[in-house]
Amino acid sequence: MILAIFCEAFKTKVSRNANMAKLQAGYLFPEIARRRATHLLKYPDAQVISLGIGDTTEPIPEVITSAMAKRSHALTTLEGYSGYGAEQGEKQLRAAIASTFYGDLGIEEGDIFVSDGAKCDISRLQVLFGSNVTMAVQDPSYPAYVDSSVIMGQTGLFQKDFEKYGNIEYMRCTPENGFFPDLSSVSRTDVIFFCSPNNPTGIAATREQLTRLVKFAKDNGSIIVYDSAYAMYMSDDSPRSIFEIPGAKEVAIETSSFSKYAGFTGVRLGWTVVPKELLFSDGFSVAKDFNRIVCTCFNGASNIAQAGGLACLSPEGLKGMRDVIGFYKENTEIIMDTFNSLGFNVYGGKNAPYVWVHFPGRSSWDVFAEILEKTHVVTTPGSGFGPGGEGFIRVSAFGHRGNVLEASKRIKQLYK
Amino acid sequence: MILAIFCEAFKTKVSRNANMAKLQAGYLFPEIARRRATHLLKYPDAQVISLGIGDTTEPIPEVITSAMAKRSHALTTLEGYSGYGAEQGEKQLRAAIASTFYGDLGIEEGDIFVSDGAKCDISRLQVLFGSNVTMAVQDPSYPAYVDSSVIMGQTGLFQKDFEKYGNIEYMRCTPENGFFPDLSSVSRTDVIFFCSPNNPTGIAATREQLTRLVKFAKDNGSIIVYDSAYAMYMSDDSPRSIFEIPGAKEVAIETSSFSKYAGFTGVRLGWTVVPKELLFSDGFSVAKDFNRIVCTCFNGASNIAQAGGLACLSPEGLKGMRDVIGFYKENTEIIMDTFNSLGFNVYGGKNAPYVWVHFPGRSSWDVFAEILEKTHVVTTPGSGFGPGGEGFIRVSAFGHRGNVLEASKRIKQLYK
Repeated sequence: MILAIFCEAFKTKVSRNANMAKLQAGYLFPEIARRRATHLLKYPDAQVISLGIGDTTEPIPEVITSAMAKRSHALTTLEGYSGYGAEQGEKQLRAAIASTFYGDLGIEEGDIFVSDGAKCDISRLQVLFGSNVTMAVQDPSYPAYVDSSVIMGQTGLFQKDFEKYGNIEYMRCTPENGFFPDLSSVSRTDVIFFCSPNNPTGIAATREQLTRLVKFAKDNGSIIVYDSAYAMYMSDDSPRSIFEIPGAKEVAIETSSFSKYAGFTGVRLGWTVVPKELLFSDGFSVAKDFNRIVCTCFNGASNIAQAGGLACLSPEGLKGMRDVIGFYKENTEIIMDTFNSLGFNVYGGKNAPYVWVHFPGRSSWDVFAEILEKTHVVTTPGSGFGPGGEGFIRVSAFGHRGNVLEASKRIKQLYK
Repeated sequence: MILAIFCEAFKTKVSRNANMAKLQAGYLFPEIARRRATHLLKYPDAQVISLGIGDTTEPIPEVITSAMAKRSHALTTLEGYSGYGAEQGEKQLRAAIASTFYGDLGIEEGDIFVSDGAKCDISRLQVLFGSNVTMAVQDPSYPAYVDSSVIMGQTGLFQKDFEKYGNIEYMRCTPENGFFPDLSSVSRTDVIFFCSPNNPTGIAATREQLTRLVKFAKDNGSIIVYDSAYAMYMSDDSPRSIFEIPGAKEVAIETSSFSKYAGFTGVRLGWTVVPKELLFSDGFSVAKDFNRIVCTCFNGASNIAQAGGLACLSPEGLKGMRDVIGFYKENTEIIMDTFNSLGFNVYGGKNAPYVWVHFPGRSSWDVFAEILEKTHVVTTPGSGFGPGGEGFIRVSAFGHRGNVLEASKRIKQLYK
């Protein structure tokens, strides 16, 4: 006699957070990693080249890694040991960030919050704002803005027909409008996420456009969360910081990162500027509440990473970062030339390490799959950045030169 | 003629997050830092000794800092460079944590999420749960549980008369109940935060008590968030992990940290275990949602810190950590002896680096202020951990030996 016992798994009585259930599929980049892994199972010998996730590949300048190694070693001595640092970051680093990136813009050490990266700070900012704010994003845009907003409960359900979440204002950025939204058709929201140079399109907003954006925020009483994580990649004279625009300190927060400047994607270091001039409707300081979030939900960036950040901002460190950035900018040109030579419409690239290639009428995921299948090159499907990205792919310029050249060769073969 | 122009500051139209407005005063430890700073202004020459915030002071064992320095240097080479790591942490470190701390408990590498510290993970867990859950905490308890719950909107307003937030179940832990709550009088909540060995009381729950706690959670369908950040400090045979209790994997998450084991308070490294057996009421995996949070709101701990974590778990690293912990445990004995010799009722200490001293009938902040004023020694007022901490102070055993001895001498002078 066979006795079959069916035992149902124990379930708690805790309801799943309804906001989590709204999220679609996986977060974009882990999803791409999964597809890449599947591809490798199918073609175990393929030399896969990743121009997908914007992940740095070149070594960190020695002056920076030495400083981190030195700080590590110091932690083993009585004099050099340090425990908890200030949640807001080390004073010297905050001061160096203020003077290096905001020298004459009136941003001070106390306005800077050092973090473990811009993505992490975006979520902390969402926690700060809470679930009752409304938000706008560029469409296409870096998915963390929208996904963190969904998680916090600021949005409605995902509407499959539109590929949009309810209650988010998607500001369409297309070749037709020069990738700057038509603000006259944008509804007022509490928060406006704005990334420039933009990820994924690679386009930087001009001074005139940002002046309009700040005026729009001021007229509406909105707060801009300005992501300038690629500012050092800019070649033209567009603003590096939203705070170059007069009046921006009353309506904007800026978040940035060492990730793409110093190859710190794995080291983890960034910062957020919350000017003391920025006030909620009741006059309460936004910086004070953000400080409370940072003190309660965070414990400061790693002291070793902070030592690296300080070295980044030394004269040699700055030179080292500029050299690495220059190298990636050469990669960008190779990628732009590749797609240009094939007759594609190519955007971005000049002010950012991203090239935004148009495949009109085609599905981004189909193009992604085609390129992966035929050339073993990983790109990023534009639709992963919002419905406005459909028909595009993003090609990242992060990669070893040999890989970029090889990818370029394979892509030329595919689309010649 | 003097022309006075009164210009009111510009305010946005964004409402302040009402949950932030509920928070009382500052987060406890920054508040203590402010009082310490004020004290130093008053007594600029005082040799202030901090036995307040639980901040490690002893150097990190060399085998660990060397590994971090080596990883730093490697980042400057083509072969050794790495960018974004897995958001969940490096595979090798996750495996080492699983085998070192949960060897025969059925916790696997995939159940471990490496983080930048337990405090940060507590907030991420709160974001996971969302604003509609109810929560219980030990009273007294580490303030991050309550404050992060307030921020997420799980609670009502602060009720001054009771020194409690509405809609939180405070599980009173007193000398009378052996610092384990009377579960028969505790209301059901979705989430139960439970810290053992406890911060601040220093008391570890016994196997029998934890068995009751797990049964309580199971009967109620609750999720326990078990904070075991001080488990390596234990001297008796109480459980080091909630997963030593049969059935706990279906009702518990465990969060822990290298901070107090390896002196990593500034380096930032911790982990959270979310067993695959843990399910929401609809059967959805809690770990899957936490994975999504980690991927969207976090980008992994610093790769250098992770190299340090791996070295911590090598045989020499483990020995190094045990030596440092042994040193702090000697400090703990000095502090316990000090207060015992003065006739105070002293709790904790045996299983944790915290001594919980009773000053019946007195205000904790008054005692804190008296000790600071008279001896220049910083402690932590018990009421900062909840109303159940009133009348107590927490004395931390983290400190250089000379400072602990000197503090002991001064306190003996004060209360002799």
